[in-house]
Amino acid sequence: MALQPVLIAGQWRPAQSTGSFHAENPATGERLPEDYPTSAWADCDAALTAAAEAAVALRARPPGKIADFLTAYAAQIEAGATELVAMAHQETGLPATPRLATVELPRTTGQLRQAAAAAREGSWALPTIDAKINLRSVLEPLGPVLVFGPNNFPFAYNGVAGGDFAAAIAAGNPVMAKAHPSHPGTSRLLAEAAMAAVRETGLPAATVQMLYNIAPEDGLRLVADPRLGAVGFTGSRNGGLRLKAAADAAGKPIYLELSSLNPVVILPGALAERGPKLVEEFTTSCLMASGQFCTNPGLILLLAGEATETFINAVAERFAAAPVNPLLSAGVARGLRTSLATLRAAGAHVLTGGEPVNAPGSRFANTLLRVSAAAFLAAPAALQTEAFGNASLLVVARDAAELALVLEHLEGNLTGCIYSDTQGSDDARYQDLAPRLRCRVGRLLNDKMPTGVAVSPAMNHGGPYPATGHPGFTAVGIPASLRRFAMLACYDNVRPGRLPAALQDKNPNGKLWRLIDGSWTQGDVCA
Amino acid sequence: MALQPVLIAGQWRPAQSTGSFHAENPATGERLPEDYPTSAWADCDAALTAAAEAAVALRARPPGKIADFLTAYAAQIEAGATELVAMAHQETGLPATPRLATVELPRTTGQLRQAAAAAREGSWALPTIDAKINLRSVLEPLGPVLVFGPNNFPFAYNGVAGGDFAAAIAAGNPVMAKAHPSHPGTSRLLAEAAMAAVRETGLPAATVQMLYNIAPEDGLRLVADPRLGAVGFTGSRNGGLRLKAAADAAGKPIYLELSSLNPVVILPGALAERGPKLVEEFTTSCLMASGQFCTNPGLILLLAGEATETFINAVAERFAAAPVNPLLSAGVARGLRTSLATLRAAGAHVLTGGEPVNAPGSRFANTLLRVSAAAFLAAPAALQTEAFGNASLLVVARDAAELALVLEHLEGNLTGCIYSDTQGSDDARYQDLAPRLRCRVGRLLNDKMPTGVAVSPAMNHGGPYPATGHPGFTAVGIPASLRRFAMLACYDNVRPGRLPAALQDKNPNGKLWRLIDGSWTQGDVCA
Repeated sequence: MALQPVLIAGQWRPAQSTGSFHAENPATGERLPEDYPTSAWADCDAALTAAAEAAVALRARPPGKIADFLTAYAAQIEAGATELVAMAHQETGLPATPRLATVELPRTTGQLRQAAAAAREGSWALPTIDAKINLRSVLEPLGPVLVFGPNNFPFAYNGVAGGDFAAAIAAGNPVMAKAHPSHPGTSRLLAEAAMAAVRETGLPAATVQMLYNIAPEDGLRLVADPRLGAVGFTGSRNGGLRLKAAADAAGKPIYLELSSLNPVVILPGALAERGPKLVEEFTTSCLMASGQFCTNPGLILLLAGEATETFINAVAERFAAAPVNPLLSAGVARGLRTSLATLRAAGAHVLTGGEPVNAPGSRFANTLLRVSAAAFLAAPAALQTEAFGNASLLVVARDAAELALVLEHLEGNLTGCIYSDTQGSDDARYQDLAPRLRCRVGRLLNDKMPTGVAVSPAMNHGGPYPATGHPGFTAVGIPASLRRFAMLACYDNVRPGRLPAALQDKNPNGKLWRLIDGSWTQGDVCA
Repeated sequence: MALQPVLIAGQWRPAQSTGSFHAENPATGERLPEDYPTSAWADCDAALTAAAEAAVALRARPPGKIADFLTAYAAQIEAGATELVAMAHQETGLPATPRLATVELPRTTGQLRQAAAAAREGSWALPTIDAKINLRSVLEPLGPVLVFGPNNFPFAYNGVAGGDFAAAIAAGNPVMAKAHPSHPGTSRLLAEAAMAAVRETGLPAATVQMLYNIAPEDGLRLVADPRLGAVGFTGSRNGGLRLKAAADAAGKPIYLELSSLNPVVILPGALAERGPKLVEEFTTSCLMASGQFCTNPGLILLLAGEATETFINAVAERFAAAPVNPLLSAGVARGLRTSLATLRAAGAHVLTGGEPVNAPGSRFANTLLRVSAAAFLAAPAALQTEAFGNASLLVVARDAAELALVLEHLEGNLTGCIYSDTQGSDDARYQDLAPRLRCRVGRLLNDKMPTGVAVSPAMNHGGPYPATGHPGFTAVGIPASLRRFAMLACYDNVRPGRLPAALQDKNPNGKLWRLIDGSWTQGDVCA
């Protein structure tokens, strides 16, 4: 069977391939019909050259044109929603409704429209003017962005449609997407919709390009290529860190979203006050989409006591009784098994689950593990192995001091949460524990599971290493996510007519927020 | 002679040393009397532990306390100005007046006071509030910052007093300074002033620590240490890139300011209009402080023609006639000689200078080199070797197309400049060349030499790799420089009393700018 073509320089053309692959339906194990190419370096090279030209051309377009594209793309996705949802359902096993059709697809188009609004208005770029000395600066595009999408959000984090894509384009950069090989058909439909929007709005043809798969060594070569501006990566820690090393050595900005355990501390007062509700909240959060979220609560920290035992028993029962949904791929199931073996070897015991389920497709029993804080402290690295999927590890500490010590041994995480009671009995413990958790996580929650990641200007979907590669940036939330894909461009004594619109005396649209002589204003520079 | 003590955990104490060094007066070659230690790892380790504790303690202080310290430190520096200037003059050979006393020292205290104001007011941290869903985020300190100061600004970039120091402290982090071994006495006086201010304002004793020198391998170990939050480095490309590799591998943010040639394009219309004035501007900028500025104009790009020959001849005459001032150290003189040899081997010829001067101390003749654009394009890497000091390379292009090609072969630089005439005869060339230069430099200038770096909110003292390690950040300019030493901290559903002051509904000081539901405001969150 002929291989699917790749999208380079505005054309769907046959890949220079070194091999091929296919997707499968993880709910059934069935092989899906299309064959997709693994591109040779020649494809990467051609895409880089086209992207570098597109980057120059895009700089000359007014921001409104880029906004028009993002909006048109959102509409194209909506027009093709039925087909997209069916394909993504087939390739990922995720429920068509509500998940794909009414949650993830609208999230994706919503992100594109928010990005469009941000591009049109321009405040994301923090234009800053020192009128007295005619010194002005603003964030500007930095060149083609290579986006690696993950397996777990076929729309909302897709390299050719998701958050990194929207942010990179809105900041004025072309995107080269590396589709995730577990949902190539979904990526193809999205790329087709993107190209329709590119044509409709007259952007440079190579504004959006896509390859299905590349050899790992070509990935390392790509991220270091001088034609590339930056990289966005969401995926496994191992793969991400290899790319980071290659990009770092070339001085290339790379933004990674890697593994995260998302520790949740449940204090005794909260358990006493609303134990059964917490059982429900945790079980729902942990098993939703078979636990395949970056913000899945994978590590629960508890203080020893009767209420904790009751909580654990109830959760174990709920895990055992809950339906077992498919994982995203056979690879995820293998990874989960390997991780659980590591956790068990380090001293965690299985309360329920722990084994694959004998059923069609890739399924693994809902798994709950337990370990003492003392054992955790004896092997903190091994016991922080991420078990990506429907599994979570409970750590029970003797007392608050031991719990504090566990927090101090945590790696960087995307989120961390503390549940406490509403009457104040947990307050002293909270005050002691919160600062220890705060500096180790990007988002600190109270009384709420971390799974939901609102697309809000105040969101931080980021965190200290190794959750990401830099603790100052977020992958979700507009306008901040755009600032990752930009360089600071300063204009010193540049003549008025040569300044970019955002830095001219007159506010270009009356809405742009600018820091003029120390104050944020939507006004003009006063003469 | 006893070794000078080091500053660890608030105490001046004997170093655990592996060796010693001394400074010399580069104007005379005279050995200066004090002996300073090269610290063993034990000193680094002790300082890291103390810094980590100070970081926790500092988080609990209100921003006003940190501002008080920075202000008190500025006053201490002013109180000790006479002694500081005398010591720095002796150690660096830079003129006591105007340079050290009336330019660099006031710049340093000015930076500290600007940083104090930024810390007190808080807007640098971009507090962002989504009131509807009670999601709030702000930049927060990320832990101890290790600052490596360079040789060329004994006050304004000193690890224990300069821009990185002020930014890191104002962002709420303790600083461990690694003094530059060419001016240890100046660094000691500054650290003493800093400690007096620490005591006066009651900050944690290890808020400011200083070591004089460490082994290169301990530097690599330091930047990767889990107790450290981030690194600021200003200095040579080789040393900086080694530290970057070590920090990157540990996932540690490192901000580098490395070499830069600061290309200056002088278009024919400008030469015709004001040639003699440009001779003057360039000569002054290039020879000031013996050319030892990060933003020294080291590469001048010209179009072939009679006016260009006139310009070159006039500059060569001025270089030959100008006084030869001392370099910062014998090491700088050796480095300059090596770089010039590289440039000559790659095809540049010396128009004037090119040799050390037979005089007391470390002096090198003012040096002007010339190469054709064709030769430059044949060896662009070698001909972009930085010759740090009183030297500059002129590149003469056949035509504008060849000049454009030279621009496209430039590495990342801190600055780039284009001189054009005021009547419009250069405008078409400017429009063609400026975009090619723009994306390769942090600061684009018109009709102005790059040497001055105003401490302004709109400044960018940064640029694409390898001028720095990340094109999005600036080392000079408050508030932006503070944001390097911070992590994004998000609060999701956190109870009101537990939020940091900057994120509570009420504006903490009535002056803090916050992005509330999409608009910048100094107001409160409306109920």
